[in-house]
Amino acid sequence: MIYKTVLKKLQLYLKSAFVRNYNVPRRALMYVPGDDSKKIKKSFTLDVDCIALDCEDGVAVNKKKEARETIRSYLDLGKPQRNIEYDLGVRINALDTEYWEEDLESCLSAKYLPDTILIPKVENSDIVRQLSSKIKNLIKTDSTINVIIYIESAKAFLNLVDICQVTESLSKNSKFQHVGLVFGSDDFCANIGATRTESSLEILYARQKLVLVAKAFNLQAIDMVYIKYKDLDGLKQQCEDGMRMGYTGKQVIHPGQVPIVQEAFLPTQLQIEWATGLLKSFHKHQKDGKGAFTYKGTMIDMPTMKQAENIVKLAKLKK
Amino acid sequence: MIYKTVLKKLQLYLKSAFVRNYNVPRRALMYVPGDDSKKIKKSFTLDVDCIALDCEDGVAVNKKKEARETIRSYLDLGKPQRNIEYDLGVRINALDTEYWEEDLESCLSAKYLPDTILIPKVENSDIVRQLSSKIKNLIKTDSTINVIIYIESAKAFLNLVDICQVTESLSKNSKFQHVGLVFGSDDFCANIGATRTESSLEILYARQKLVLVAKAFNLQAIDMVYIKYKDLDGLKQQCEDGMRMGYTGKQVIHPGQVPIVQEAFLPTQLQIEWATGLLKSFHKHQKDGKGAFTYKGTMIDMPTMKQAENIVKLAKLKK
Amino acid sequence: MIYKTVLKKLQLYLKSAFVRNYNVPRRALMYVPGDDSKKIKKSFTLDVDCIALDCEDGVAVNKKKEARETIRSYLDLGKPQRNIEYDLGVRINALDTEYWEEDLESCLSAKYLPDTILIPKVENSDIVRQLSSKIKNLIKTDSTINVIIYIESAKAFLNLVDICQVTESLSKNSKFQHVGLVFGSDDFCANIGATRTESSLEILYARQKLVLVAKAFNLQAIDMVYIKYKDLDGLKQQCEDGMRMGYTGKQVIHPGQVPIVQEAFLPTQLQIEWATGLLKSFHKHQKDGKGAFTYKGTMIDMPTMKQAENIVKLAKLKK
Repeated sequence: MIYKTVLKKLQLYLKSAFVRNYNVPRRALMYVPGDDSKKIKKSFTLDVDCIALDCEDGVAVNKKKEARETIRSYLDLGKPQRNIEYDLGVRINALDTEYWEEDLESCLSAKYLPDTILIPKVENSDIVRQLSSKIKNLIKTDSTINVIIYIESAKAFLNLVDICQVTESLSKNSKFQHVGLVFGSDDFCANIGATRTESSLEILYARQKLVLVAKAFNLQAIDMVYIKYKDLDGLKQQCEDGMRMGYTGKQVIHPGQVPIVQEAFLPTQLQIEWATGLLKSFHKHQKDGKGAFTYKGTMIDMPTMKQAENIVKLAKLKK
Repeated sequence: MIYKTVLKKLQLYLKSAFVRNYNVPRRALMYVPGDDSKKIKKSFTLDVDCIALDCEDGVAVNKKKEARETIRSYLDLGKPQRNIEYDLGVRINALDTEYWEEDLESCLSAKYLPDTILIPKVENSDIVRQLSSKIKNLIKTDSTINVIIYIESAKAFLNLVDICQVTESLSKNSKFQHVGLVFGSDDFCANIGATRTESSLEILYARQKLVLVAKAFNLQAIDMVYIKYKDLDGLKQQCEDGMRMGYTGKQVIHPGQVPIVQEAFLPTQLQIEWATGLLKSFHKHQKDGKGAFTYKGTMIDMPTMKQAENIVKLAKLKK
Repeated sequence: MIYKTVLKKLQLYLKSAFVRNYNVPRRALMYVPGDDSKKIKKSFTLDVDCIALDCEDGVAVNKKKEARETIRSYLDLGKPQRNIEYDLGVRINALDTEYWEEDLESCLSAKYLPDTILIPKVENSDIVRQLSSKIKNLIKTDSTINVIIYIESAKAFLNLVDICQVTESLSKNSKFQHVGLVFGSDDFCANIGATRTESSLEILYARQKLVLVAKAFNLQAIDMVYIKYKDLDGLKQQCEDGMRMGYTGKQVIHPGQVPIVQEAFLPTQLQIEWATGLLKSFHKHQKDGKGAFTYKGTMIDMPTMKQAENIVKLAKLKK
């Protein structure tokens, strides 16, 4: 009985903090240039959580139309069904460009509505208002679409809480739900004049502010790109740093990065064993009416319990 | 004359930033499970700045009533008088539980009013409003009580400035004064999905934001728990990291941690010698009408002077 | 044609983020005690971007009047013309002192208006309102003056965005433009009770928040003082850390620090070669209609391009 009460509390907690988005994990968010039919086809064969067909920075200015039309032709074929669950998204151009409206009109009138629209360079909540009204006009059915917002400038960080509040509020009367924030670190660095090092310590403030705000709004937090795509050790290190901060996934620019990223954003075997053992021990102690207790030489309390529950939940995604 | 003017300015500065709370140092804030009479008795024999009799996470769900009543029975006996000055507090359950009102009623109607009430999981200023009105109703005398607030979730961090502003404002017409913020790091990590490492670099943003906001409101800042209670070297390191950030104390979950913590939150002998010598040198240079001057190969200015004054002040607590 | 469109977009971007203030670089902001005629004379012979004639912390209380009058006498002689472009500023006393009004009246009625006024210890926007109205009254001509604001306390950090918004707004109807923020780290450490280490990790939150807010308002960000003026290796390290965060310059307390600082806030030869090569390669790929491309084993996109443009721009300052 007691255990059930505690468990119920834990489950409510976990639900509010995690469940909604973890239903669709986005550990690796992989970009595929929208004008590159060969790469698009290949991406459908990969074991990757989230494919972002790109109209934006991965596409040259004179290829914008081609990218938009190529993406549309694939969406008209329907989402390729596969053994794994995955997210099929489109990254449109930023709302201060001449391209975004046609990008959105094209993909939202396709036979198959993409699962997610990714919106780069959102600097303030007015951009969200503009987007929301456009989406509302374009989706004629009862369907809704996931929205992921990119934070990539100093101004965007100043307005971050406002952006999330307005997005949450507008989603109630529009056709979308806000599911994630992306840290656009390279644009951000260019914007504030920062120079990246391997540790990324020079942008720690922004990187951790994003994760904190994301979690306050129950959103997924997608970490920065690791640009040296041949250095898999460096990639692994940066994945683990991000995961420890609370990031739930990472942007990927090359298929070779996907397995490392998706592995890193799962709990380790050691963590799973620790969490499983701890929950058993907790169960036993609760029956005996003891609150704080010791497990493997460490004092365990409610917060540690919650961390254990999180790990067990994520472990279910592990093959 | 000149020296006196400068000294007066320094003292006003120090008063605004530090004096109020350092009158009651809380270097170690030690939790004692409220249902464990043996541990409570033992805590009264320890040389510890602040004892928090716990109704919350250190007490099992089926022991909540027993904890509340045990704490009450001790408070009815009066605060044990000892050679050292110390703070006797009660951590009640969070305001979203069924326990907090009875916890508060019980301890605020005891023969001896606890010095401090510790309020876990404060997420927004509405919780403070609810608490303030309850305290006002329960304390019938002219007495007031210290309040310490726990910040342990992403949402709480978003609302942190508002929480402190409302608390400061309400304290003027209620029966409490706000004296401190606690960084509830383990609950926070569970909430944002972070994984702790020894350096705690992954939560640096939150840890340093808390200390900055605390100081802006003239509050003590109490650092996170070091959970591996047998690793005293690790504890010492984490104490020193926190102290360097501006934390004034640390949560303690085991009596064996107390001496290390209380030592770490005092200035070192080296710092005291440096500060004492610097103040002497400053005195001499001011008489000669020189502003910036050199001390031990370092250029000294007003801010450095203030740091020296802080150290000398804290040194008086040193045995 | 395509290249020109992209380039125009790049230039607009660079203009908004950088150009206004980089027209007057302030890599080294060097303090010279206002009461020390010998040091003032010497400062005019140095190759330094920005000279701040000091009325504040570098001047003893009984020398305040002397400093003010000495600075005035130099301003009446006009700004010494030299081979290099440089900024001649006056740091007045804080607005909560008895000195600031006379400081401002004295230097704003001189024959030569200083290029910049530096305002220490700005804690909230009311201080800016007071300052703005005073400047408006004192400058009778069409001239305007640059204003640099010091952020040096916990409260100032809480109010930082408001301070910048109000300053930007008031500058439209006053006689000044806001051009920079200075991180007054030593006063800040004294205020929050922090203890500095060589890495400055203990104040990273504040240091990076300042740079982010500065860039959101298109302001220069001037990093903390390196106080051990004989340790040039340590100075270099701290310069590079700050520059990587996005700082555009650094406070200097000794002429010996100037060359190291001014060198550190220029791009390195390696960065310049990398950026120049990348821009060439970009040009070629754009003509071929390819967006994302590889350069020296690294995937290049628009944000990386912008970083390269920044570097080439700064390189022009390099001798």
